[in-house]
Amino acid sequence: MRSITRNLGLATGAMALAALTALAGTGAADAAPTGTQTLYAPSALVVSVTAGPDAAHGTVLRAATLVCAPRPGGTHPDPAAACAELKANGPALDPLTAPRPNIRCTREWNPVTVTADGVWQGRRLSYTYTFANPCGLHASTGMLFGV
Amino acid sequence: MRSITRNLGLATGAMALAALTALAGTGAADAAPTGTQTLYAPSALVVSVTAGPDAAHGTVLRAATLVCAPRPGGTHPDPAAACAELKANGPALDPLTAPRPNIRCTREWNPVTVTADGVWQGRRLSYTYTFANPCGLHASTGMLFGV
Repeated sequence: MRSITRNLGLATGAMALAALTALAGTGAADAAPTGTQTLYAPSALVVSVTAGPDAAHGTVLRAATLVCAPRPGGTHPDPAAACAELKANGPALDPLTAPRPNIRCTREWNPVTVTADGVWQGRRLSYTYTFANPCGLHASTGMLFGV
Repeated sequence: MRSITRNLGLATGAMALAALTALAGTGAADAAPTGTQTLYAPSALVVSVTAGPDAAHGTVLRAATLVCAPRPGGTHPDPAAACAELKANGPALDPLTAPRPNIRCTREWNPVTVTADGVWQGRRLSYTYTFANPCGLHASTGMLFGV
């Protein structure tokens, strides 16, 4: 008798799971099955480097995508390191643009602007930082903006 | 003599290309070789669907990355169709959120907001549109926001 109850319990669980999957599926009824519908809060970012001090209107030199769940991926050159930095710093990314110790840069004004835009753990993320010149970017702590 | 001149011209061109490549390489001196440094203008986007009328502070339900060059890719369920729509509409994406003809939706206020953020052909793109309810999203013309 106990085993029958267990089997019924399992069957009910399976039905609940099927119903849940069907509900989740209604979000994109016309679309092909997608890897974006998971139990993880969505995280999908675009990291870019723009010439000049104005990310909104400047020419974007480089851009890469970054996904951190269920596993690090995207066109970012080092998704694992970039995702680790995001996990450690949450949405406050200023520590990643801070200079590494013992590195000196020239001080000319030849600005480059880095951005991180998109979604981090279910919330919108929009980060912008302008370095005085490319040396500042190369001398920064984080791997995230090294696209 | 003419062929020598031509060869010299070619050699100079090759040297210039090598120098250009070296310059481009300095952008990520510490990083592994990356697919982001190509001759294509960078295009990398995050497409998201958020509950409510406020993309900046709402809970993001779904998010996907989209890359269109050198070939369509990312976690978007249909990168090829989404890239074709982007190519046809450029940065002005309103036609993609317009309703398909002959589809009627109820009119209750249960808003969902779609966004496309990142870089499109070397320029920043930031698009937001709020549908009155999920039916409006399902009944829209484009595949881009069907994540």
